[in-house]
Amino acid sequence: MSLEQLKQEVLEANLDLPKYGLVTFTWGNVSGIDRERGLVVIKPSGVAYDKLKKEDLVVLDLEGRIVEGSLRPSSDTPTHLVLYRAFPHIGGIVHTHSSWATSWAQAGRGIPALGTTHADYFYGTIPCTRPMTAEEISGAYEKETGNVIAETFATLDPMQIPGVLVHNHAPFNWGKTPHDAVHNAVVLEEVAKIAARSFRLNPDLESMDQTLLDKHFLRKHGANAYYGQSK
Amino acid sequence: MSLEQLKQEVLEANLDLPKYGLVTFTWGNVSGIDRERGLVVIKPSGVAYDKLKKEDLVVLDLEGRIVEGSLRPSSDTPTHLVLYRAFPHIGGIVHTHSSWATSWAQAGRGIPALGTTHADYFYGTIPCTRPMTAEEISGAYEKETGNVIAETFATLDPMQIPGVLVHNHAPFNWGKTPHDAVHNAVVLEEVAKIAARSFRLNPDLESMDQTLLDKHFLRKHGANAYYGQSK
Amino acid sequence: MSLEQLKQEVLEANLDLPKYGLVTFTWGNVSGIDRERGLVVIKPSGVAYDKLKKEDLVVLDLEGRIVEGSLRPSSDTPTHLVLYRAFPHIGGIVHTHSSWATSWAQAGRGIPALGTTHADYFYGTIPCTRPMTAEEISGAYEKETGNVIAETFATLDPMQIPGVLVHNHAPFNWGKTPHDAVHNAVVLEEVAKIAARSFRLNPDLESMDQTLLDKHFLRKHGANAYYGQSK
Amino acid sequence: MSLEQLKQEVLEANLDLPKYGLVTFTWGNVSGIDRERGLVVIKPSGVAYDKLKKEDLVVLDLEGRIVEGSLRPSSDTPTHLVLYRAFPHIGGIVHTHSSWATSWAQAGRGIPALGTTHADYFYGTIPCTRPMTAEEISGAYEKETGNVIAETFATLDPMQIPGVLVHNHAPFNWGKTPHDAVHNAVVLEEVAKIAARSFRLNPDLESMDQTLLDKHFLRKHGANAYYGQSK
Repeated sequence: MSLEQLKQEVLEANLDLPKYGLVTFTWGNVSGIDRERGLVVIKPSGVAYDKLKKEDLVVLDLEGRIVEGSLRPSSDTPTHLVLYRAFPHIGGIVHTHSSWATSWAQAGRGIPALGTTHADYFYGTIPCTRPMTAEEISGAYEKETGNVIAETFATLDPMQIPGVLVHNHAPFNWGKTPHDAVHNAVVLEEVAKIAARSFRLNPDLESMDQTLLDKHFLRKHGANAYYGQSK
Repeated sequence: MSLEQLKQEVLEANLDLPKYGLVTFTWGNVSGIDRERGLVVIKPSGVAYDKLKKEDLVVLDLEGRIVEGSLRPSSDTPTHLVLYRAFPHIGGIVHTHSSWATSWAQAGRGIPALGTTHADYFYGTIPCTRPMTAEEISGAYEKETGNVIAETFATLDPMQIPGVLVHNHAPFNWGKTPHDAVHNAVVLEEVAKIAARSFRLNPDLESMDQTLLDKHFLRKHGANAYYGQSK
Repeated sequence: MSLEQLKQEVLEANLDLPKYGLVTFTWGNVSGIDRERGLVVIKPSGVAYDKLKKEDLVVLDLEGRIVEGSLRPSSDTPTHLVLYRAFPHIGGIVHTHSSWATSWAQAGRGIPALGTTHADYFYGTIPCTRPMTAEEISGAYEKETGNVIAETFATLDPMQIPGVLVHNHAPFNWGKTPHDAVHNAVVLEEVAKIAARSFRLNPDLESMDQTLLDKHFLRKHGANAYYGQSK
Repeated sequence: MSLEQLKQEVLEANLDLPKYGLVTFTWGNVSGIDRERGLVVIKPSGVAYDKLKKEDLVVLDLEGRIVEGSLRPSSDTPTHLVLYRAFPHIGGIVHTHSSWATSWAQAGRGIPALGTTHADYFYGTIPCTRPMTAEEISGAYEKETGNVIAETFATLDPMQIPGVLVHNHAPFNWGKTPHDAVHNAVVLEEVAKIAARSFRLNPDLESMDQTLLDKHFLRKHGANAYYGQSK
C-alpha cells in the first residue's frame, strides 16, 4: 500500500466518525500507520469533518517529527505514537468521545463481557485505565496517556481486546487498519450502550460464561473462524 | 408462491432490518420457508446489507444441504432449521442484536406483558431461554441454540408469542412470513424499550391484568379479531 | 370550516404522527370534529400512514353511525366519541403509543409538573387513569376507555390539562383543533421523557412551585397571555 | 461588524438550534450584541424556525427599547438584557429546553465535571440556580431570571463556565459570539447526557481530579492553549 492509499483510507475512516454518530464537532481523530516506512498519517487538530481533505492530513515518523503537511496534527498524536510502538500488530487507531463509552470511562468502570455481541469482538472485559497521577497529567500528558494504556495491556492482548476506556476521559480503539479501528469503535459504543442497560435491568450481573465467550470470539477470529465468506 | 417470489420477500425483509434500525453492520439475518418444497432461503454470512442481492441468498433443504447459491449461509442457519422443524406454522424467522431486546437477553430476564402495546402482539411474557450448558456450546452450538428455544416453547404457542430472548445472546422472532417476522422484531424492540423504562419508573411492576391482555391480543388475532380492514 | 377542510386537516394531523416520531407502524390515530354539523372525521383502522389518503378517512356522527367512507374506522373510535361528548370545547383528539408517555402509562403513574416545559402546556399533573374493571374491559371496551378518561377529569379542566395516560395502555391528547391535539401529543412525549430522567437524577422530586406553574401556564394561555405574536 | 452582519449571524445561530436537535417547536432563542452600538438582536417570540427570516429579528437597546422590527421580541428578552449587562465579555446568548440539560435543571442539580469532555469547555461544575421566590416570579419574572443567574455567578467567571441551569426551568448558554453560544449549548447537552449516564453506572461519583480539569480546560483556552490550528 502506498502512502497515498493510506492517506485515502485515513481520510475515509475519519469521515466515518460523523457517519456512525461517534463524534460531536471535532471530538475525534483516526490515524493509520505504514509499518514498512515507519510513517503515521493522522487528522489535523480542530478541523471540521465536513471540510477535511486528504491534503490536510499530517504525516509523521514514530518520533513525532512532521514529514508532510502544513497543519498542526491532532493534539492526541503522542498517544497514538506510543500505542503504535507498544502494539506492533495494529495498523490504525481511533479516538472519540462517543457518549456511551465515555459514560463508562467517566464512571471509572471497565465493561465486562455480558453477551455474544461483546464476545464477537472483545475477548473479555474492556478495561478502564487507572487514574493518571498529577505528575503524568502535568508532564507530557498525551504521551503519558499512551503509557497508561500500554500499562493496562501489560497482561492483555491488544489484538483480542481492541479498545480501552481512559479514566475520566473517553475511549481509544485500534485494529489491523484504520477502517478496522473505526469498526471496533462502533462496536464498543454499541456494547457500552447494551451493557449499561443490562445492568439497569439486573444490577447483579456478572461476566458471561467463559465457554460462550470462547465460542463466539473464536468463531469470528483466529485459525478456526467460520463466520463470513472468506476466512 | 414461487421460490423466486420467496427469495424476493426474503431479500426485502433483510433490507428492512437496517431500515428499522434493528442492525449494526451485518448483525442480523432473515430467512423464509417454502413448506411445500421443504426449502429455506436465508441471507449469506457476513454480507453487508447495502450490497446484498437476490442471487446472494442461499437455498437449503431442512437438513441443511445447500440447493442453490455459491455463498456460505448465515452462521445461524442451523438455529433457523431447528425452529422451522419445531414450529410447523411459521413461515419466516429473523435474528438481530437489536439493542433493547439484547439488553434484556443479557440481563437474563423475560419481558412481562406490561401494557397493550405488548398485548397487541405477544400473548404473555416474552421468555428468556435458560443458559446453555458447556456441552451444548462446545458441541453443535447453533443447532443447540435452536433446541433450547424449542425447549422454552414446550408449553407455549409460538404463534401467540412470536419471539424469544436467547440468554446472554439476543432475540429471535418469527411469523407467518418473513415480513411478518420482521414486523414482530420491530415490535419486540419497541416493547423491550418501553418495558425497561416502565420498570425504572416503577420497579415493583407486575404483569398486566389478564382480562386486558386477552382483550387486546384477541381483538387483533384469531377468529373474533376486529382491528384493521380485512379480517 | 367545510367538512372537506376538516378532512384535510385530519389527514395532515395524522401524517404528522410519523413525522414527529410518535408512532410505530399504524399505532396511532387522529380525529377532528365539526361541532356545528355534529360530525367526526377519523383515520380508518390499520391503514399505513404512507398510504393514507383524504378519501380513506371515515366520517361519523356522535352516535358512531358512519356518514361517509367505505373503510372501517379506527378501533378506538368509541373512545374519541365519548371524549367529544364529555369535553365540549375540544376540536381534535389524538391517540398514540409514543414510547415515553406509554412507559408512564405502563408504570401506572401520572406525570407531575416538574418544570416550565410542562407548565407551558399542562396546568398540573398529567393524570393516569385508574385500572379498568374486568366488566369494563369485557364489555364495550373502547367506549369504557373514554368513560374512565372522562371520570378522571371529573374535577379537572380538559382545556388546561390536554392529555391523559390510560393505565397499562398509552396516552390520549386533545386540543382546540386536530393540529393542536398533535402539538400537545408532541409536548407530552417530550415532557414524559424529561420527567423520567429528572426522577433518575433526583428520586425525591416533588411537583414544582405553584407560583412558577401559574406564571408559565398563564403567560401562554388565557386573557393575560403575552407569549407569541397575536394574542 | 455591521448590524446587518450581526443579524445574519443571529439568524444562522437560531437556525442551528433545530439543526443540532436542541429545540422542539419554538422552544429556544438566540441573541447577539453589538457592544459598540449598545444594540441587541434577538429572535421574535413564537415564530417557527423554518419560517424565520432576517427581517423578523428584533433590535433593542440594553434598556429593552425596540429600535428595529415589527414583531414582539422573545418573551425571554429581559433575561438576555440582564446577562449582557452583568457579563460584559459575552457577545451571544442562547436559551433552549434541550432535554438532558433540562432534566438536570428540573432535578435541581448542577452538573459536576466528571471528565475531559466537560473540562474542555466548562472549568468546573455547571451550576443550577437557587429556586426563585414567589415575589421574583410574580414580579418582573424574566428580568429576575437574569438576576438569579447573575447572582449564581457572583463568584464564578462566566467566560470559564459559559452556561447555567435555571432551577425547574432549563439552560442558558453564552459565548463570545452567537455561534459560540450555540456551540456551548450543544456541548452542555452532550455533557448533561454523559454525566447522567455516568451517575447511573456509578452513583458515588465525585468531581474529576483538579489537575486533569486544569490540563484540559487550559490546553483549549487562554494564553497557553495548543488545541486547534490558529491560537
